[in-house]
Amino acid sequence: MNFRLLCRVLGIVCLLIGGSMCFSLPFAFPLLANRTYLPAAEQIEKGGIQALVLSMAISILVGIVLMFSGRGGRGASLFRKEAMAIVGLSWVMATVLGALPFYLSGTETAAGQSITFIEAMFESQAGFSTTGATILTDLESPDSVPHCILFWRSWTHFLGGLGIVVLFVAILGQGSAGKAMVRAEMPGPSKEGSMPRMQHTALMFAGIYCGLNLILTLIYMIEGMTLFDGLCHAFGTMATGGFSTYNRSLGGFDSPLIEYTTIVFMILAGTNFTLLYLTMIGGPKRMFNDVEFQTFIGIIVGLTAAIMFFGIRGGDVGFESVPQGLRNGLFQVVSIITTTGYGTADFDQWNNFARGSLLLLMFVGGCAGSTGGGLKVIRHVLFYKILGMEIELAYRPRVVRLIRIGDATADDPAMLRGIMVYFCLILGIFIASWMLLVTFEPSSTWGYTDDAVAAADDSTLDEKLLDCASAVAATLNNIGPGLGVVGATQNYAGFSQGAKFLFVWLMLLGRVEVFSVLVLIFPAFWRRA
Amino acid sequence: MNFRLLCRVLGIVCLLIGGSMCFSLPFAFPLLANRTYLPAAEQIEKGGIQALVLSMAISILVGIVLMFSGRGGRGASLFRKEAMAIVGLSWVMATVLGALPFYLSGTETAAGQSITFIEAMFESQAGFSTTGATILTDLESPDSVPHCILFWRSWTHFLGGLGIVVLFVAILGQGSAGKAMVRAEMPGPSKEGSMPRMQHTALMFAGIYCGLNLILTLIYMIEGMTLFDGLCHAFGTMATGGFSTYNRSLGGFDSPLIEYTTIVFMILAGTNFTLLYLTMIGGPKRMFNDVEFQTFIGIIVGLTAAIMFFGIRGGDVGFESVPQGLRNGLFQVVSIITTTGYGTADFDQWNNFARGSLLLLMFVGGCAGSTGGGLKVIRHVLFYKILGMEIELAYRPRVVRLIRIGDATADDPAMLRGIMVYFCLILGIFIASWMLLVTFEPSSTWGYTDDAVAAADDSTLDEKLLDCASAVAATLNNIGPGLGVVGATQNYAGFSQGAKFLFVWLMLLGRVEVFSVLVLIFPAFWRRA
Repeated sequence: MNFRLLCRVLGIVCLLIGGSMCFSLPFAFPLLANRTYLPAAEQIEKGGIQALVLSMAISILVGIVLMFSGRGGRGASLFRKEAMAIVGLSWVMATVLGALPFYLSGTETAAGQSITFIEAMFESQAGFSTTGATILTDLESPDSVPHCILFWRSWTHFLGGLGIVVLFVAILGQGSAGKAMVRAEMPGPSKEGSMPRMQHTALMFAGIYCGLNLILTLIYMIEGMTLFDGLCHAFGTMATGGFSTYNRSLGGFDSPLIEYTTIVFMILAGTNFTLLYLTMIGGPKRMFNDVEFQTFIGIIVGLTAAIMFFGIRGGDVGFESVPQGLRNGLFQVVSIITTTGYGTADFDQWNNFARGSLLLLMFVGGCAGSTGGGLKVIRHVLFYKILGMEIELAYRPRVVRLIRIGDATADDPAMLRGIMVYFCLILGIFIASWMLLVTFEPSSTWGYTDDAVAAADDSTLDEKLLDCASAVAATLNNIGPGLGVVGATQNYAGFSQGAKFLFVWLMLLGRVEVFSVLVLIFPAFWRRA
Repeated sequence: MNFRLLCRVLGIVCLLIGGSMCFSLPFAFPLLANRTYLPAAEQIEKGGIQALVLSMAISILVGIVLMFSGRGGRGASLFRKEAMAIVGLSWVMATVLGALPFYLSGTETAAGQSITFIEAMFESQAGFSTTGATILTDLESPDSVPHCILFWRSWTHFLGGLGIVVLFVAILGQGSAGKAMVRAEMPGPSKEGSMPRMQHTALMFAGIYCGLNLILTLIYMIEGMTLFDGLCHAFGTMATGGFSTYNRSLGGFDSPLIEYTTIVFMILAGTNFTLLYLTMIGGPKRMFNDVEFQTFIGIIVGLTAAIMFFGIRGGDVGFESVPQGLRNGLFQVVSIITTTGYGTADFDQWNNFARGSLLLLMFVGGCAGSTGGGLKVIRHVLFYKILGMEIELAYRPRVVRLIRIGDATADDPAMLRGIMVYFCLILGIFIASWMLLVTFEPSSTWGYTDDAVAAADDSTLDEKLLDCASAVAATLNNIGPGLGVVGATQNYAGFSQGAKFLFVWLMLLGRVEVFSVLVLIFPAFWRRA
């Protein structure tokens, strides 16, 4: 392990995060935040500024120390071990530094209840991992959260999304499945991606990402948002994060225009950035020929239709008419599949088909190489193709078939095995975390004061089992809201500190696609090979 | 596809099943059933005899027709396709023929409610697949079920268990994982298993199985059961089925002696029959050196301890004292892991840890090559070893390691891939069936008359989602009881006909380890290769 190089890169990450904190400062002032402050609130905003400046100082100091420790550390070629350690540790470092502004400003999770450091880490991780799960109950009162801190909260989404686009998509190629796709799709003779090409791609992708953020902000402002709200919601949409500045999330605007705009941009954010880039050069034909994108759109259309059908038939809330049903159904489906997690309707009140299928949809996720989380559409496509092939192999043991995705063939056995392994790993982590939560989370989280009384009631038990499952699914797949106590109108504030700490790791595991973090806890990983 | 051979084998299956129906006839008479009948009940028993004789006639007739159609059909070597078709179709045939006695005798699922043919198939499949799920509400009243039919019900367990031991374990080698183990464990130079050796093994295994059934019956009778009860419960235990002749299942005897006896024999039934055979020859050392058996016992001991701890701490029903907790905890853990499904306590009333972990335990199952269902312990052992290796491969791409099980190495890449594929297939079937049930099962199953009112209540929705999941898990893994409406004190009578039909297929899929049945629905399977 090249520790000097590791320190140097981590140092750069600290400096970047610390430096970018200054962008939140202007929003402490009424002019930019477009809200009128009471004198008491002004005092609180000042607290926010102090916290931000202090956090900046700490981050930059840590960055300089790390850079200094890592001086002379150069790597002509990066081994996979180093790359994984850098990715995993950078994310951990970002989470801790990102938690400082929340913690130091004394943000309140509920009225009169100051945030703990674990809770601050939860909020910071939910931002960087673009999950959008929150433990803040009241976002609208400046007594609870100063505006500059609220901006920092959404800014972590922007940084997280940028990190994903640059790190995973452009440089690392988003896991083996994504890499195979990038290789197959990228023009030019270089198959391995030389250094200048990688830098060029990273810059291009960062440009597309920032450009889309800017365009969306402008559209939002035209549609009636303030600069502050426009920026925050654009960050939330393009990073597929889902942090809002309103308690009722995007539903607070109650505007079909804003919702349909958001739907379009969520879909763009959930699309492979390589594909967006190629579409920009080669026109939209490229996009609609892509198997992953076709499947992605197909799932959205099919599931929305089914949810509308069952919703209207069952007379659910929000399905009073077809346009109403389309608006609510489509928004929730897109919000969940892209792992954004914005809420406009409380899908927890819908029928069982909708609840069950949205819970499953959490595991689908966006396209590979997008800012979306989850298992990714391409993994599902390959997964079903592999299963079909294996069933045929069961009765035709000698048949040889190649798995085709569009015009390309996926023939790397390690990649195909990797798909199965990834599904199984996610399943294993899901089950283990669910059991931990179910076992150790006290009944008070569900509002029952007496454990024994609560335990005697079957429906309470069912609620616990299901809510825990949805909370794990929503954090592991970087969605945000789930069912029940973590439903669209609820948040994660009620969970115990231990559970919040677990969620921090789940969000991290989901974001870096498990391996980069999981290896960190293996002693063998740190040993000299 | 060699259709003549197929017909001939199916014909033999029909003749065997039809012929074996005569064993149920004696139990129509009070002397053997050890119960005194009222005159009305005697009339009903006569109906049972008529139904059995008619079913026998039909089965033998169908058998003769099939044998006749298949005359001259000989296979010097059986192709894999034929073997799969034979296994899958034999089980379907057995289910349909086994349903005849229930249907023709007019068995009542609840007071005054005659069984439908789908329900009769459910009961028959639950017997042959050794699941033990039931749709009969009252077993103790001879008005609902004649004794000879009750005996037939348990006899299907015996036949199913015998079929598994002979077909899967001795002849087919229980899938690739089991086959690798059999190859590694079986003494002698022949690796492939010649025909005489296979016949010898099949006879040996059938002998062990029948012997254990006989011994257990005798022990039960010494412990106070009648011949009828002893035989029925021995069949239920050794086949890891779980049909009882009492409404309260084995709990009806309320005898710690009987329960501990059952625990020992359930563990034996959940153990690899090859291992039992080798232990008989070579002594118990062989048994305790076996990795799968060690893991199996380890899970039972560990989980029982954990459930006792949480049960006693939480003051659950049935955990009033340590001996009480041990008796109830151990029985339920063994009953679920071996996929027997006998109930002595209502674990649905226990704490969340117990409910959650027992639900997960359903997917573990017994050892490969036993009569137990589920995914099998050895698959789990290999699964975790593969995942560990893949994580290491993520940062050491060039490392080459062999997966070791005890002294043997599992190095067949197709087998290792097969493990992952099997986990993913089971997961896929589980999820698809769960969604089907959740979507189409009416609220009336849960006792709510008005769908809209029921849907408005969150806890009702949670109950539905969870109960459906447990019902699918309990049938797919051949357990029997689940949580909620299919809990230990409940049964499957309340489900709609469509749901019952789905369960019939799930039990079948679980029993024949998916492939043999799944391929039957592929048109390509039936085409000439």
